Amino acid sequence: MNDVTKTLTQRRQVFADNALLFYDEPVYFTRAQGVWMYDANDTPYLDAYNNTVSVGHCNVEVVEAITRQASTLNSHTRYLYDTVLDYAEELLKEFPEDLSKIAFTCTGTEANELAMRIAKETTGGDGFIVVGNAYHGCSNATADISPYGSDGIVSASNVRALEPPNSYRLSNAEIEQNFTDGLRQCIKDVENNGHKFAALIIDATLEANGIFAIPTTYLRKSQEIIREAGGLFIADEVQGGFARMGDRMWSFERHNVTPDLVTVGKPMANGLPMGGVIGTADLINHFFRQHHYFNTFGGNAVCAAAGQATLRFIQRERLLNNARSVGKYLFDKCSKLMDKHEAIGHVRGAGLFIGIEFVEDRSSKKPAPVMAKAVMNSLRHHNILTGLAGQFDNVLKIRPPLIFDKANADQFLDTLNLVLSLDLRPATLRP
Amino acid sequence: MNDVTKTLTQRRQVFADNALLFYDEPVYFTRAQGVWMYDANDTPYLDAYNNTVSVGHCNVEVVEAITRQASTLNSHTRYLYDTVLDYAEELLKEFPEDLSKIAFTCTGTEANELAMRIAKETTGGDGFIVVGNAYHGCSNATADISPYGSDGIVSASNVRALEPPNSYRLSNAEIEQNFTDGLRQCIKDVENNGHKFAALIIDATLEANGIFAIPTTYLRKSQEIIREAGGLFIADEVQGGFARMGDRMWSFERHNVTPDLVTVGKPMANGLPMGGVIGTADLINHFFRQHHYFNTFGGNAVCAAAGQATLRFIQRERLLNNARSVGKYLFDKCSKLMDKHEAIGHVRGAGLFIGIEFVEDRSSKKPAPVMAKAVMNSLRHHNILTGLAGQFDNVLKIRPPLIFDKANADQFLDTLNLVLSLDLRPATLRP
Repeated sequence: MNDVTKTLTQRRQVFADNALLFYDEPVYFTRAQGVWMYDANDTPYLDAYNNTVSVGHCNVEVVEAITRQASTLNSHTRYLYDTVLDYAEELLKEFPEDLSKIAFTCTGTEANELAMRIAKETTGGDGFIVVGNAYHGCSNATADISPYGSDGIVSASNVRALEPPNSYRLSNAEIEQNFTDGLRQCIKDVENNGHKFAALIIDATLEANGIFAIPTTYLRKSQEIIREAGGLFIADEVQGGFARMGDRMWSFERHNVTPDLVTVGKPMANGLPMGGVIGTADLINHFFRQHHYFNTFGGNAVCAAAGQATLRFIQRERLLNNARSVGKYLFDKCSKLMDKHEAIGHVRGAGLFIGIEFVEDRSSKKPAPVMAKAVMNSLRHHNILTGLAGQFDNVLKIRPPLIFDKANADQFLDTLNLVLSLDLRPATLRP
Repeated sequence: MNDVTKTLTQRRQVFADNALLFYDEPVYFTRAQGVWMYDANDTPYLDAYNNTVSVGHCNVEVVEAITRQASTLNSHTRYLYDTVLDYAEELLKEFPEDLSKIAFTCTGTEANELAMRIAKETTGGDGFIVVGNAYHGCSNATADISPYGSDGIVSASNVRALEPPNSYRLSNAEIEQNFTDGLRQCIKDVENNGHKFAALIIDATLEANGIFAIPTTYLRKSQEIIREAGGLFIADEVQGGFARMGDRMWSFERHNVTPDLVTVGKPMANGLPMGGVIGTADLINHFFRQHHYFNTFGGNAVCAAAGQATLRFIQRERLLNNARSVGKYLFDKCSKLMDKHEAIGHVRGAGLFIGIEFVEDRSSKKPAPVMAKAVMNSLRHHNILTGLAGQFDNVLKIRPPLIFDKANADQFLDTLNLVLSLDLRPATLRP
């Protein structure tokens, strides 16, 4: 048995039979460094997908911070220790002044759970509004507000979903109109269902929708509607935070809004589980006065040290600039590929977060999920890691570590160009 | 400003004003090793409280495993890699044969969230029954089933709470009668509220109730009632698992029951965030067929390596035996202290999980929370770390790392004896 067959067999025994696994032919990895992951033959794969390791796989400074802290002290926030407080201070400086307090959690799911609890406590309501096809987590309440995880369906009576701001199929004016009208209607709907409006939760990158990250005016207008209705504006920065978008540290900033609560997760500690809710002093203090909230591992010293090393690396190495410049290069060249490859319907995104939407043809804009999946699997066979996003799984998701450089971008672009020139139909369907 | 004042000021700026903090005079820690935590003056504190570091603070083997893995590969379970699968295999061997599959999460909260989702999917119901004053997590759904976190109140219409099996105030026969009658009634109640019965969730150590860990027949009888009613039996082993109770690896085993689902957390990876749901192949497979569940950091390679090193240390160093023998020694000597100290109403527990209940007097058994708190704070001033539990916060919680030895136990016992001989009333109330 080779390594892949062996681990697949082992995996089927200990995990659920169909626990999620990437690619038609899964990859077995043994080590990783920077933007590279290596299989059992030490073949390098270019990582154009993993945002959890935003300062690079096995980043030496992060590993050193983890080792130092793990061998010195690891504890929880019911005792006093420096690391988590110093890190909190450094992190909060990256936020607008009003967002002055943080509560640490272990994951983005837990952060959104806490944000929902704070919204419920603050407003006395439990009506939540999200974007159609959004994903906000894997727990009960966050699954309720995650149409993406439920095949697009919103079934909870306290949740309503808005039409996604699809910048490929709608004009900016249409987006603003649809979104704000929809928001007003959704607020009415949840309240008619007996659920006072609590909050709009939105990932401003619209990742699960296929990265509709072009900021227009719709969020600013929405914020006024939310305030009038007495609800909160929660920005889910699990995808778009920590310099990903190239121009600003947080994706909400690109929309000129200041949320009431911000949730963070994934890239926060470069691969260790860490998340948090950042909010105004009033909101955070009020909630903690009402509830004995405690998260055992939230802000533990080892994850805090990893988070601190990650943030400092982002700052010192100016990864915001790198995401902007390499991202722009990648975006422009991807757009150029449209001249040669009809299957590409739309290229969008910002910074190192780019979506390439595949369509049957450009006039109908009919989604081409089979094509998108074939491209992803072919890229994997050419040793490049990407993923899919969007309501129809027809958007190639490019979201590499933030240290991705121009040479990496060129390798990606050359390989994508090659792959798109191949006949990707299954052998049986080829002429 | 000294270190404590400085960090307290810093903490109030970045965290909620009243985020939970231990002791009237909080301790500022700078390092830890084994069963010892050290403050800024390098004064050692004996840790008789922290179960997250079950194989000892900064355990060298765990630190080595973390460092090795963090510098080699850290990734998620949508790719194939060895560590998490090898660990899962080793861990599942510690469970009854029927419990053959695991889904990793990052925390006990997330594990209970997933167990609730599986119970809902399996039964088509959402009626949950818990023990009064139980604690199962800090998210929305787990807070709903955690009366402890809500000052004893159960407000969700799909949740009912049972009278705790209080072995200090009730006979074994009364416990069995009350618990099984109560269970039947609660099932009726949730179903009358329109919520089909989904599961009983119980921490068999009854930690939040003040560690009523003496196994009698009540859980075995309850399991029959649960099966007849078509619900699941979920054992929350976040507190009682991983050899804590001395006689068996999991606290449910002490009751001669096999749950449908088991949730684990806290001590799993010796301080790194890790949790999981262990269940039968049918339940786990069925849920994953219905839902695209994915937990980004659940089973990440670094936490898996830490979990594996922790489990192997427990096994090789026979910490189950240590918990049993040192636990018995501690229990017997604590019981002996009752001869000298009238304030101790009851000593109970198993292994290295012992509760000492303080009462106004032994005939009324009236809880004495002020006394218990004074004892905990006085122990802290004598450099010993403990905590409180129970509905009335009148139970001293002794739950040290599993490497706690007889000399540590003696130091604890001598200090407790000393503290109990002091006049612990506030100065203003002393004669």
